Amino acid sequence: MPHIELESHLPGITGLLEYRKDTGQPIRELTQILMRGPSTLSEGERELIATIVSHGNQCRFCTTAHTAAADLLLGDKTTTQKMKDDIESTPVSEKMKALITIGAAVGKNGKLVTPEMVTRAKTEGATDAEIHDTVLIAAAFCMFNRYVDGLATWAPDNRQFYVNRAPQRAEEGYIDFDLYK
Amino acid sequence: MPHIELESHLPGITGLLEYRKDTGQPIRELTQILMRGPSTLSEGERELIATIVSHGNQCRFCTTAHTAAADLLLGDKTTTQKMKDDIESTPVSEKMKALITIGAAVGKNGKLVTPEMVTRAKTEGATDAEIHDTVLIAAAFCMFNRYVDGLATWAPDNRQFYVNRAPQRAEEGYIDFDLYK
Repeated sequence: MPHIELESHLPGITGLLEYRKDTGQPIRELTQILMRGPSTLSEGERELIATIVSHGNQCRFCTTAHTAAADLLLGDKTTTQKMKDDIESTPVSEKMKALITIGAAVGKNGKLVTPEMVTRAKTEGATDAEIHDTVLIAAAFCMFNRYVDGLATWAPDNRQFYVNRAPQRAEEGYIDFDLYK
Repeated sequence: MPHIELESHLPGITGLLEYRKDTGQPIRELTQILMRGPSTLSEGERELIATIVSHGNQCRFCTTAHTAAADLLLGDKTTTQKMKDDIESTPVSEKMKALITIGAAVGKNGKLVTPEMVTRAKTEGATDAEIHDTVLIAAAFCMFNRYVDGLATWAPDNRQFYVNRAPQRAEEGYIDFDLYK
């Protein structure tokens, strides 16, 4: 049961964005710009960063929702699971491995990002903007994960619930999403 | 040295908000609404939550800046330090102790907030809105702390630097703050 009274049909962060709409609006805008705005990182790559950070924080709602989004946008249902198990053996570019390594470090504490991690990412072709966005996506999901779990919001158990809603989320983005209504 | 090229005169988060202004704008808005908008928690109490979470994450820039803000807004220079040392023996209301306990838990992981912590806060008179805002402030500062440290931004060593800027921050809030320019 959530720690505060929320609309019971809205799981995870959706009930919180509804509970306090004035803080919900900039949260939606930040997410939309960061996850769907212009970027040299694909939407699938950005969802992959969100997935790995949420998985590290053991946030079930965010992990399952963003895994479904990443699977759809990457067009491949195995990368997210492989990345959760072991970054280095996952068949993605060396640049993505380096960026996900930075994102996973930020997920624990920003101080865990080492100059070596950053040098590796740059050597593999990552730009300053890509490194910046990786850190900010990881940091933002630490906020979302804590918001969702800190108030004990409910999350549907059935993975299919999230998979069914991923296409609409991919298409409509995060500004107006009421996917769970 | 920061991991990416930032304007060298802007410390901590200020250089990052300048680096990417389109994500900076909703971050500023969220901070302003949460920390300075209408609330039954005083601005000083909200800055105290921000301080304790930033301290827990060992983010020097955020801790020193928000300690200075809390000291000023609480009108008392000892509460922040006492709270960093031990929540329970700090001379604040029982409600604030309960809320800070929740905020400190969120700072580590949202799952660490227990029903007992929430029951205690409610018993001491905390409303749902106050519990919500405590969790969201704590979650948001986990984002800020990771953003600031994950990109290795610089922070002035001298505590007086932050103390000198606290009055302007208290007065002008977070939307347009260029306190460090």
